[in-house]
Amino acid sequence: MEQHREHHKPRESCASCASCELCAEAGGELLWADEHCRVVRVGGDEGRAFPGFCRVIWQSHVREMTDLDAGQRAHLMSVVFAVESLLRQHCQPAPDKINLASLGNLTPHVHWHVIPRWQDDSHFPAPIWAAANKTASRHAHRQIQPTIDSAVLRQALGKRLASS
Amino acid sequence: MEQHREHHKPRESCASCASCELCAEAGGELLWADEHCRVVRVGGDEGRAFPGFCRVIWQSHVREMTDLDAGQRAHLMSVVFAVESLLRQHCQPAPDKINLASLGNLTPHVHWHVIPRWQDDSHFPAPIWAAANKTASRHAHRQIQPTIDSAVLRQALGKRLASS
Repeated sequence: MEQHREHHKPRESCASCASCELCAEAGGELLWADEHCRVVRVGGDEGRAFPGFCRVIWQSHVREMTDLDAGQRAHLMSVVFAVESLLRQHCQPAPDKINLASLGNLTPHVHWHVIPRWQDDSHFPAPIWAAANKTASRHAHRQIQPTIDSAVLRQALGKRLASS
Repeated sequence: MEQHREHHKPRESCASCASCELCAEAGGELLWADEHCRVVRVGGDEGRAFPGFCRVIWQSHVREMTDLDAGQRAHLMSVVFAVESLLRQHCQPAPDKINLASLGNLTPHVHWHVIPRWQDDSHFPAPIWAAANKTASRHAHRQIQPTIDSAVLRQALGKRLASS
C-alpha cells in the first residue's frame, strides 16, 4: 500500500489505479478538493433518486480508513462532517436524516457516501442499498421535491473548509 | 436536543429515550464503554451472518454526527477506527473489507456499524442491507468460517483505548 499512499493522482504504472474508477475519474460533479480529498455530487439515476447525495473521496488509492494515519483520517472526517452540516443547512426541505457510509466492497478506494434522506424517498427508512419500499409513482409524487443547488454547496464548502 | 446531550442514561421523563431501543438496551454484547460511547458485538441472526459485526453507540440520545461537537465526534471516530483496526487484526481469516456506516433511519440515535466482510459472505460485494446474492447453502459452506473471539476483542479494546 505504501506506494499508493505516496501519490495523489493515478499512475499508469500502478496496477490498482489502472482498474480503479475513483483513480481514473472524479466520480461526480466536483464541488471541492484539496491535495488529500475531494467532494463530488453524485449524478445520474442515484443523484435523481437521492437529491444532494455527495461523496467524499480520498485522492490516493488507499483501501481502508485504518490504512490512513490519524491525521489523514481526522482531515477526511472533517470534510465528511462539513458536507453533512451543509446538506442539513442548504437542502430544502431539511433532510429527515443523514446517512454516512464507507463501504468500498466493489471499489476499495476510500470514499464516503453522504446521503440526505427524506421520509418520502423511495427507500426510507431502509438504507438506499436495500430494495425500494415505495412504488415509483408514489415516490415520484412526493409532496415536496427536495432541492439543493450545487453552486450554493460549492461556495459553502469553500468557505467552511478554507482553513482546514 | 440539549437535554439529551447532557445525560448518558435514559431518563424516564425523556420522550425520545422512552421509545429508543439504544437508550433502553445495550444493543448487543458489551465489549467496551466509557461515559461517552460503548462498543457492542452484534448477536442473533445478524451476528451469525456477519461474524465480528460490532456497533459503536453514543451513550446519549443524539440524532446526527453534526449534533455532536468536534471533540465528541473525534472521540467517537477514534473508537470506531480502533474497532476497525482490531477486527482487521484479530478476525481469522482477516476480513477482505471493512464496512462503516452511520444510518439511523429507524433508530435516530448516533451509532456506527463496523462490519467485517469476506468475499464469500452471503452479500459480498453488496452492502449487507441489500438482498443476499449467494444461496444459503453456498454461504453456509464457505471454505473457512471466520472466527473472532469476544474476549480477545474486549481485552484488545481495553488496551487500545485505555488512554483515549
